[in-house]
Amino acid sequence: MKLVRYGNPGKEKPGLIDADGKLRDLSAVVPELGPAQLAPAVLAKIRKANPAKLPLVRGKPRMGCPVANVGKFIAIGLNFTDHAAESGMPIPKEPVVFMKATSCIQGPDDDVMLPKGSVKSDWEVELGIVIGSRARYVSKKDALSYVAGYCVINDVSEREFQLERGPQWDKGKGCDTFGPIGPWLVTTDEIENVQRLDMWLDVNGERMQTGNTKTMIFGAAHLVSYVSQFMTLLPGDVITTGTPPGVGLGMKPPRFLKKGDVMTLGIQGLGEQRQQVVGFKA
Amino acid sequence: MKLVRYGNPGKEKPGLIDADGKLRDLSAVVPELGPAQLAPAVLAKIRKANPAKLPLVRGKPRMGCPVANVGKFIAIGLNFTDHAAESGMPIPKEPVVFMKATSCIQGPDDDVMLPKGSVKSDWEVELGIVIGSRARYVSKKDALSYVAGYCVINDVSEREFQLERGPQWDKGKGCDTFGPIGPWLVTTDEIENVQRLDMWLDVNGERMQTGNTKTMIFGAAHLVSYVSQFMTLLPGDVITTGTPPGVGLGMKPPRFLKKGDVMTLGIQGLGEQRQQVVGFKA
Repeated sequence: MKLVRYGNPGKEKPGLIDADGKLRDLSAVVPELGPAQLAPAVLAKIRKANPAKLPLVRGKPRMGCPVANVGKFIAIGLNFTDHAAESGMPIPKEPVVFMKATSCIQGPDDDVMLPKGSVKSDWEVELGIVIGSRARYVSKKDALSYVAGYCVINDVSEREFQLERGPQWDKGKGCDTFGPIGPWLVTTDEIENVQRLDMWLDVNGERMQTGNTKTMIFGAAHLVSYVSQFMTLLPGDVITTGTPPGVGLGMKPPRFLKKGDVMTLGIQGLGEQRQQVVGFKA
Repeated sequence: MKLVRYGNPGKEKPGLIDADGKLRDLSAVVPELGPAQLAPAVLAKIRKANPAKLPLVRGKPRMGCPVANVGKFIAIGLNFTDHAAESGMPIPKEPVVFMKATSCIQGPDDDVMLPKGSVKSDWEVELGIVIGSRARYVSKKDALSYVAGYCVINDVSEREFQLERGPQWDKGKGCDTFGPIGPWLVTTDEIENVQRLDMWLDVNGERMQTGNTKTMIFGAAHLVSYVSQFMTLLPGDVITTGTPPGVGLGMKPPRFLKKGDVMTLGIQGLGEQRQQVVGFKA
């Protein structure tokens, strides 16, 4: 299933994209798409609903983040060998874990705002994992059974805040609007192999990032298992799993986002995002 | 006011400690002590209630974290010059910002559990700031008007996970039970000068940390203003502001927590915590 939350910010309704790509309202089946609805039993209930009988939503409403009330927004750094190299960082022996502020989460097509004084804001297309069941010290073998689904995430990053004003990265990762998630939460049953998905990101129509989840150093199952050794993962937690090469920081000379730029990005089977970059607004 | 949440985990009720140190139930005034109740208007409503008319709670119930549904648990590193020195780290030119997983939050006297395989778990008594109003790019001068109150926090840390399995610290900061908060949320009106509070921490009755918030490199107002430049602070967000010298990592030889240890800690005017250290439980 492709689950969505549509409508104005803070007033999103649950919805579903049917086999014809049409948006159907799910409000009669579930009140929301949040932690409680990501449980396998509730997803099974949604799955039983006949999409053809759900109300068709007309027009092109705004899409919100497909998961409400994300508790933890966990991020993995340097998870593609080529991206580690372009960042001038060693290839990690085990996953690098940091966090994005949950207050940065927004819809997939909402504007990305440059923070006040920012001159090094950058893009990162990433595979997002959405947790469906409480996971604590889970094995790699079992890990994906705790996952509700996958989504596209742009792990927008301010490199000066992250790297020159560190040593911790969180400062440059959680600025307002730096967490576009969606458009869809695609349930695990729709993804045959999460480690075989093409990824791409364009700025102003020019291809910047091309990758495939097959070249992730640590795959989705490894990451869920790994993170669950350090903290309990709860339904609605999101793990964004690292970006392939092609970020602005790695270019010679580096190239960063400026007002008016448009980022478009997507992952095979998980949909596409489009963000306009806007200047700082008080 | 000294606000509390008391009762079994997940079933806490709002309460207040009256002038005689007695626990009074606040359920008739507010349904919870969460983000919505930290607004100045709601705190004013609680302030108007006559404590003598609120139901007296008998016995010694467990105390929970005095704030429900913390959205972000932000932490400041190396914020006392002596602690930076004992950690072998440079004194930061600006605040070091990292995050603790919200899933590590617990009551002030709940057991602290050593993570599986942990050999370097450590203590850190810290002043906690609880945000009461949405704060975004606020000035240092205005910063404290966005604060609902203060509390004691033990920023429990696994040094191997934090420092040897880094380079990002979050991995060793958010393990389950690593975030005891409370016992009280003390509203700002009760604290004459937040930069003049004694702090202490004992392990098994032996004094380990002695400090005062006056030696913080960056004070509370500076930190709220600073963090608000990088992310919007929301009601219920908590900032833990760094620890004075005397952590186990800084001892020669280093000394870490073991099963059976008891940590007691407190901050002048903000109450005391007591945690028993227990071994890993599956």
